[in-house]
Amino acid sequence: MLTDQPSTATYTTDWTGKYRGDALAVVRPAAAEEVAQIVTLCAQQGIAIVPQSGNTGICGGSVPIDSRPSIILSLSRMNRVRAIDRDARTATVDAGVVLEALQNAVEEHDLIFPLMFGARGSAMIGGNLSTNAGGSNVVRYGNTRDLCLGIEAVLADGSILNGLTGLRKDNTGYDLKNLLIGAEGTLGIITGAVVKLYPQPKVRATAFLSVASLSAALEILNIVQDRLGNTVEAFEYVPQPVVEVILRHFPQIRAPLSEPANVGILLEVASSRTDDAAEASDGGKALQEGLIMALADLMESGLVLDAMFATSEGQRNDLWKLRESVLESINADGPAYHLDVALPLSRVADFVRIMDEKATELGFRPLTIGHLGDGNLHYALAAADPAKWDGLPLEAMKEFAFDLLAELKGSFSAEHGIGQSKAELLRARKEPSQLAMMRAIKQALDPQNIMNPGKMLV
Amino acid sequence: MLTDQPSTATYTTDWTGKYRGDALAVVRPAAAEEVAQIVTLCAQQGIAIVPQSGNTGICGGSVPIDSRPSIILSLSRMNRVRAIDRDARTATVDAGVVLEALQNAVEEHDLIFPLMFGARGSAMIGGNLSTNAGGSNVVRYGNTRDLCLGIEAVLADGSILNGLTGLRKDNTGYDLKNLLIGAEGTLGIITGAVVKLYPQPKVRATAFLSVASLSAALEILNIVQDRLGNTVEAFEYVPQPVVEVILRHFPQIRAPLSEPANVGILLEVASSRTDDAAEASDGGKALQEGLIMALADLMESGLVLDAMFATSEGQRNDLWKLRESVLESINADGPAYHLDVALPLSRVADFVRIMDEKATELGFRPLTIGHLGDGNLHYALAAADPAKWDGLPLEAMKEFAFDLLAELKGSFSAEHGIGQSKAELLRARKEPSQLAMMRAIKQALDPQNIMNPGKMLV
Repeated sequence: MLTDQPSTATYTTDWTGKYRGDALAVVRPAAAEEVAQIVTLCAQQGIAIVPQSGNTGICGGSVPIDSRPSIILSLSRMNRVRAIDRDARTATVDAGVVLEALQNAVEEHDLIFPLMFGARGSAMIGGNLSTNAGGSNVVRYGNTRDLCLGIEAVLADGSILNGLTGLRKDNTGYDLKNLLIGAEGTLGIITGAVVKLYPQPKVRATAFLSVASLSAALEILNIVQDRLGNTVEAFEYVPQPVVEVILRHFPQIRAPLSEPANVGILLEVASSRTDDAAEASDGGKALQEGLIMALADLMESGLVLDAMFATSEGQRNDLWKLRESVLESINADGPAYHLDVALPLSRVADFVRIMDEKATELGFRPLTIGHLGDGNLHYALAAADPAKWDGLPLEAMKEFAFDLLAELKGSFSAEHGIGQSKAELLRARKEPSQLAMMRAIKQALDPQNIMNPGKMLV
Repeated sequence: MLTDQPSTATYTTDWTGKYRGDALAVVRPAAAEEVAQIVTLCAQQGIAIVPQSGNTGICGGSVPIDSRPSIILSLSRMNRVRAIDRDARTATVDAGVVLEALQNAVEEHDLIFPLMFGARGSAMIGGNLSTNAGGSNVVRYGNTRDLCLGIEAVLADGSILNGLTGLRKDNTGYDLKNLLIGAEGTLGIITGAVVKLYPQPKVRATAFLSVASLSAALEILNIVQDRLGNTVEAFEYVPQPVVEVILRHFPQIRAPLSEPANVGILLEVASSRTDDAAEASDGGKALQEGLIMALADLMESGLVLDAMFATSEGQRNDLWKLRESVLESINADGPAYHLDVALPLSRVADFVRIMDEKATELGFRPLTIGHLGDGNLHYALAAADPAKWDGLPLEAMKEFAFDLLAELKGSFSAEHGIGQSKAELLRARKEPSQLAMMRAIKQALDPQNIMNPGKMLV
């Protein structure tokens, strides 16, 4: 237990520096039973509990809100990989295991835990689950929710839910696992999980494409999936305006194509299949040749305008470096508001077209990237003239975006969650029947409202 | 609305004939709004509502219990496929669409809705979702839960939850969709859904294997998955005692192998990948040759003892006929008690060994088949001597099985659900913390207990 100011400071502030809140103490239990004792004690005293694992979220979900006497319950000491079952392809882990540590541990067994995003060196499994984290290979493996077979959690009454099964089928009652996943600690504290593992890819192929339009991109995704057998691991949208911003701030990065790609796609396929890794006629591997041939046909049909195929690990790294420099470049380029939205795949093009038009009209400069294969866009509203940012009608632009999302049946929070930052938005925009259902569940499972209060539901 | 006895009879009795219960009326609304009006009226009058779609379940979940004045709400008139989005690979359907009708509708678009089980000619999507139906290709495509992107439902207060989105990512609050899926109508009535579609396989390969042991089977599954790129669509356990029963009752069916297979596996792979469907050196297709080569290597390593590879559609049909005759054969063979259990994949062999030993000792004759790729066994306890069935210690045997399942972290209801038949079992065997959580949710969302009372929670 930590109570003195310097020791608790890293816990009471989130990593963006935007959210902070005082805590009576930071407690660091070592087992689910200890978590249960802490929750029981807090329930008796009416003290709020803010669970925290890697504290890498960007919605302020893992730090206290000052209106309540709170403790931070850090899961960082619960950091054991409890078991790896190589044959069943599952791992049983504590909630405080760092994502990358799990990935390293299973690699020794020729397996992967596929969840992939920037903060994986400090994000922990408990937080991944509580926020249903996404990332760049959801198109193949799904969100964190899809990677989890069972959980252990401590509920608001101090009871322990022992759901650490590795079952692929289980119809014994309500789906409590998925209710707790993505609940951001407001219904209970996830203390452990059984997760799915996958075979390590034996071969990869990566390319950067200039494609005819966003609608063409969806067609290309389907064609590549069918031709190469659902091997697409990344289908990332990086259009020319974003490439320009990156090149401005990272002059050492080269443009992937000689001509600007209005609709640029970073495409990666990977396979654990033996024959995909076999040597093909051109000396490369079969999957790589398969992708080259698919791209040749797509260029002939006019869907792909230009393509750069990474012929070395160095070239592949350059492409990913481009993708991973996006956020830093946009941040360096001036003020911007970031939307994290999702659309049905066939409405993505409509959303971008209508948004771009409106944003430009109002003096914004849209900088959009996204996990296009999931219909997930990170749409940043920068200023056409950064000096005039303060005068731009940001609220009106946001309302326009949220209205448009509602019309297109999209989501105003695709993968980053709600936390503090979008709690008001949820209250305003979530369908009333669903909001009422959420409130009823919250009230039933945490009547004292001690589990991460002020997050998600306000 | 139907109220006269002959018209309501098919609704008030389940198809097994084991469960029946009176209904004040059978109402057949045509839209979610009508369902909402009916629920509102029933809530005012304190009348229980039993939602019913195809009425093909085997746990008595879709017929009333006589202790309550009830109506049956049939979804059979809500049978429109509302939309098929070929590019996004989704279909939006009414809950009363028959599974096979949906499958036929999407086939025209070169797509499949993969859910596959015997009753698909009469089972409806609403029931598939409410029971989280499984079947024979869960190993590849997951349970119904995994095939659903969004739902529309009517809640106990008569409000409509409009969740018919086709989103692949959406982190705006609690996972209400998965809470309603598998809840057997006790929390709300699913009236529509957006489901995932997949490309049609271009090639299949099917074989019957005699393998060295159940542990070897798991190893074989992993090897085939890795070599052939996650193409396994069925990995069904059909051991020799079951084959013998089938041959006894269906003399026209031939044994797939000349020597008995103590551990027999029906294996099918399928692929929509172009190069898998290309002609291979032996004149067959590449995927088929790939499977033959994999099996040759597995025989050399001793994991596979013998194999029959289906070289024609006729041979494939024979293998599936064998698999699909199991239940009818066991039923014809004498009385038996059927368990529907799931185990973590690496505990399946332990379960079968321990159960077989105990069952034999107590005078039973175990007849086990299963969706082995999911760890899901349909373990039937027949009598060694059918004439002595009545004297066998069935209750003791069942308790032994449920104790063993608890020890091995298995499930006592893998894919058939709870309904009436396992409600007492759930009360006795579900972890108290989970049962309490379920009850709290039920109480919060249906305080009058009008939504399918007496099912699941008693």
